[in-house]
Amino acid sequence: MATDIPDIVIGRLPIYLRELTRLAEEGKQKTTSSHELGHRLGISSAQIRKDLSHFGEFGKQGTGYHIGYLTEQLSDILRLSSEWDVAVVGAGFLGHALAHYNGFLDRGFRIACIFDNDPQKVGEKMGELIVQPDTDLEKIIKHKQIKVAILAIPPHVAQPMTDRLVNAGVKALLSYAPIHLTVPEGVQVSYSDPVIQLQRMTYYL
Amino acid sequence: MATDIPDIVIGRLPIYLRELTRLAEEGKQKTTSSHELGHRLGISSAQIRKDLSHFGEFGKQGTGYHIGYLTEQLSDILRLSSEWDVAVVGAGFLGHALAHYNGFLDRGFRIACIFDNDPQKVGEKMGELIVQPDTDLEKIIKHKQIKVAILAIPPHVAQPMTDRLVNAGVKALLSYAPIHLTVPEGVQVSYSDPVIQLQRMTYYL
Repeated sequence: MATDIPDIVIGRLPIYLRELTRLAEEGKQKTTSSHELGHRLGISSAQIRKDLSHFGEFGKQGTGYHIGYLTEQLSDILRLSSEWDVAVVGAGFLGHALAHYNGFLDRGFRIACIFDNDPQKVGEKMGELIVQPDTDLEKIIKHKQIKVAILAIPPHVAQPMTDRLVNAGVKALLSYAPIHLTVPEGVQVSYSDPVIQLQRMTYYL
Repeated sequence: MATDIPDIVIGRLPIYLRELTRLAEEGKQKTTSSHELGHRLGISSAQIRKDLSHFGEFGKQGTGYHIGYLTEQLSDILRLSSEWDVAVVGAGFLGHALAHYNGFLDRGFRIACIFDNDPQKVGEKMGELIVQPDTDLEKIIKHKQIKVAILAIPPHVAQPMTDRLVNAGVKALLSYAPIHLTVPEGVQVSYSDPVIQLQRMTYYL
């Protein structure tokens, strides 16, 4: 794998993959083009061609991209060929929403377990999962060899929980806690804070 | 306001603001530096100084930034001096989580109303709000002059709902629906799709 590909390019690949899946679901066509993808995504076709060219030749001048083939290739590049088990930490309203979210299906991830430290929540059924006590977290994550986790807990407990997850073997962490997390090299963190996203937009209003 | 400031710079300002607020809450100090902020955020101090220099001179060589003053300035730049009313569309698990999220408090936003098209959900109490029928959406958004909305609805209804919101006057939209939305010029859209964020990380695993 090329290692000098800008992170911003990597960040667009999942968006291409999602749109290809949508095209396949619409079922009207077997091929697409950088122009069509660009039009649907509000991205220039040149950008799409350039992004994809980092990874090889996926299309042919004149005939474009075969949707099924490009989907497969992007899935491979993003290491989604087999499903990743995901641990959710926090069984509050957000944990609830994540446990019931059907958007993970067929996109490479499966919520495998959900934890909370509140005895009132432990044992509760959420979708097909049962909330586990966070004291069992290390044991379960190690046993299931879980590498991906989602934090749905308050900010003041996010860093210590991150440390515990990383020590248990987690390598990629999506955090909904509105706080910057410190992780060792080799561990990926991504953040989702609605206020940060809203503030970025109000600048333009 | 300078209009040629890269969007990526604008995107970092909310993160600086959040960290300044956190520093103020810790209450240990009245000033900070680009070095301290950078260390806490995993961003280089040169980057922080360069980002802020787009908007003026906020610090002094040797004494750094006054936390209270810089907080105020960034709030002004991001137009957060008065609170924005926010409409949430979708009262499912995610709408529930948003309505109960206390992370909006004191950060420039207030959930003012929540809508759903499901008669079973309309009338339900969520935090301090009552779920309203989506048929009243245009009337309420126009009456309250709401400019900011959050979409917490399934992808297949996201574009028509976006059109309705924009027609009613919404100018900034945060969407949790996993689909690209088309909006007229002058309307901001931001997306939150956990799978896109997870896929971007698994590339590196």
